[in-house]
Amino acid sequence: MARATARRRVVRLTGAERGTRPDALAAEEPLEIRVGGEPLTVTMRTPGQDFDLVAGFLVGEGLVHTADGLAALRYCAGTDEDGANTYNVVDAALRGAPALPLSAHRNLLTTSACGLCGRDTVDAVRTHVRWPIAEDPLRVAPELLYALPDRLRAAQRTFDSTGGLHAAGLFTAAGELLCAREDVGRHNAVDKVVGWALRAGLLPLTGHLLLVSGRASFELTQKAALAGLPLLAAVSAPSSLAVDLAEELGLTLLGFLRGESANVYTRADRVH
Amino acid sequence: MARATARRRVVRLTGAERGTRPDALAAEEPLEIRVGGEPLTVTMRTPGQDFDLVAGFLVGEGLVHTADGLAALRYCAGTDEDGANTYNVVDAALRGAPALPLSAHRNLLTTSACGLCGRDTVDAVRTHVRWPIAEDPLRVAPELLYALPDRLRAAQRTFDSTGGLHAAGLFTAAGELLCAREDVGRHNAVDKVVGWALRAGLLPLTGHLLLVSGRASFELTQKAALAGLPLLAAVSAPSSLAVDLAEELGLTLLGFLRGESANVYTRADRVH
Repeated sequence: MARATARRRVVRLTGAERGTRPDALAAEEPLEIRVGGEPLTVTMRTPGQDFDLVAGFLVGEGLVHTADGLAALRYCAGTDEDGANTYNVVDAALRGAPALPLSAHRNLLTTSACGLCGRDTVDAVRTHVRWPIAEDPLRVAPELLYALPDRLRAAQRTFDSTGGLHAAGLFTAAGELLCAREDVGRHNAVDKVVGWALRAGLLPLTGHLLLVSGRASFELTQKAALAGLPLLAAVSAPSSLAVDLAEELGLTLLGFLRGESANVYTRADRVH
Repeated sequence: MARATARRRVVRLTGAERGTRPDALAAEEPLEIRVGGEPLTVTMRTPGQDFDLVAGFLVGEGLVHTADGLAALRYCAGTDEDGANTYNVVDAALRGAPALPLSAHRNLLTTSACGLCGRDTVDAVRTHVRWPIAEDPLRVAPELLYALPDRLRAAQRTFDSTGGLHAAGLFTAAGELLCAREDVGRHNAVDKVVGWALRAGLLPLTGHLLLVSGRASFELTQKAALAGLPLLAAVSAPSSLAVDLAEELGLTLLGFLRGESANVYTRADRVH
């Protein structure tokens, strides 16, 4: 089974000096996600917690909403040229007729309209979110939020020796870290956290907080919303469309959460 | 036409203080890429240089190799609900019968083999690279490389007020910055640079250097290789599969290019 890191020889340059040494790299391998035997997508990810990754991906696409919707996950018994299982193909069996994935839905919208815009994209996600996020009574103090990045970094330090991984952490309203995941892809880190929560029977994630180590894009906000999270915080900046989606859904979106400061872009009433 | 930044009101928290102020965000909008009228993909990007983005994307998928391969680019005349063109759909006309896109090709490989692995993925890209990258006689001094990140940041400062953008810069072997591009998506920043070079008649980019502001993933290395670049440098870490692909193709891959130091993962003979 693939490891989360890989070792390679590297030439280290420091000023005019030059030396050779071993280096640990974040492992990256393709993962094909199938639903009912049909290929859905291939994502480049760091091996490990693959079932969580697939479960979370399916939540983010609007195909699965709670643990009940996921009947089974299994590695496809594919082998490489040496006859070893690659563990890079996962097949998911769903309960109930799945809706069209959001990504395909987005394509269909545009094909018919030829007028793709941010508004269409926000609407496509909004219609797939089943949880009344706007009504979530979550309230958190700024001081609690300020403490989260250090807690996520402390969890990262135990297994990130590569400097090459994005992180996502799920917290309770009291600031307790429930699950931290890392991946070469930031979407994957969030998928792994959401998938862990789905399989633990925690969806929707009412009253919980999600922190990501980088920027808050539209797609990360979409993933948070489809998991039912009322608050998404990012260490770096959000995009305009992430803010638009959060505004539309009543999700609290924070950016630049660093030290004793943060920007609250939407639903700031939950932070006080 | 959409702008590269968008303004929003934000609640700024600093310790126990709370204030409201305007904030500039990196704009994010969907862009649908069509080839000959057929939808190929939707990417979330920062509006601006869309034709470069599409041209570079097509290079990275192995559909276009030089400026001759791209007959025309045009915005589809789609409109939003207010009747304004969204400028979010671009149609490309290609010369010659296009090969299958790499992303589809990767799916086809796995569907037939059910044994998807990093090796398959590297091979799929290798067969699409037309340029003899391994034989590129580029030689650069470490001091020249150390100077590149500051030059890219200087170009960024002129238009990034949001803190939310990834950057990519194309340099000559003498360290001259030819083109710098920013985007909410790091793949898009590279696509915009490669597309600019394609449309300027510069492909293959023999003897040139590409610098990216973040990590070096497999897909960024793929994009560099399909543009014919002999050297890719990243400010942060590469992934294992990025190193494997660079090794296979004879492309020089640098990571952690910061201050007066760097790691050279492959083909270090070009740096001395």
